[in-house]
Amino acid sequence: MEPRMSIITLGVKDLERSYRFYHEGLGFPTDSKLEDGIIFFQTSGTRLGLYPLDKLAEDVSPGLTPGSPVFHGITLAHNTHRKDEVDTILKLAEKAGAKIVKPAQAVFWGGYSGYFTDPDGYYWEVAWAEFWQFNEDGSLIV
Amino acid sequence: MEPRMSIITLGVKDLERSYRFYHEGLGFPTDSKLEDGIIFFQTSGTRLGLYPLDKLAEDVSPGLTPGSPVFHGITLAHNTHRKDEVDTILKLAEKAGAKIVKPAQAVFWGGYSGYFTDPDGYYWEVAWAEFWQFNEDGSLIV
Repeated sequence: MEPRMSIITLGVKDLERSYRFYHEGLGFPTDSKLEDGIIFFQTSGTRLGLYPLDKLAEDVSPGLTPGSPVFHGITLAHNTHRKDEVDTILKLAEKAGAKIVKPAQAVFWGGYSGYFTDPDGYYWEVAWAEFWQFNEDGSLIV
Repeated sequence: MEPRMSIITLGVKDLERSYRFYHEGLGFPTDSKLEDGIIFFQTSGTRLGLYPLDKLAEDVSPGLTPGSPVFHGITLAHNTHRKDEVDTILKLAEKAGAKIVKPAQAVFWGGYSGYFTDPDGYYWEVAWAEFWQFNEDGSLIV
């Protein structure tokens, strides 16, 4: 098995609301249309997908119970090139309708980081640290 | 904000168990050691991270309740180059301790796909379709 995730799909309660949050709010590019019923963003590396939560649960396994609004156990991180981008992006997300869960702050592992939740409560960390290095497409050098 | 996810972190109940599942079972490469307390895999594009669930919840926000074992609403997809790889990878995952939630089958959107859950119940889809195209590093062409 090649070591990679091709797509991360978030099951969302309101496809239009989430489409607007990521596309108009955060500026993620996409060729998908709302009427397609599924949205794929042109993210570098792993693609981000949005699909109605009930349909995603059914696609995985009929009868599966969608989760309650607790911490899902998964975080998505967006690492920035510069420290000040953390603040800029958290402000952008808040303006787009995100909830700031943890304001940007110096953290124990040596970086500067904050968290927001998207309209469905999925957690995004926005983080910067001196020691992260980037490939040309913005992905982290492993 | 650049459109990308740098890292996906899974909050896990037993770091060693999950490390063995992904590293020894699925063969994901890593330079991380168990004693580091956090594991990053050398996945192309977006990196996969493992971190103890209680510590991840605390990192996001003190007092956050980790989720119950229902469907988390997030799926990770591994898209394959060939149809027969779907079966091979599902068998590999099962041998590594995964539970097959949906055996490989022809699906409504035109592909061939199955799902397994990892030791913490996180959902992975293994999917193939004629119309997906790949970059040299295995990521999907957007």
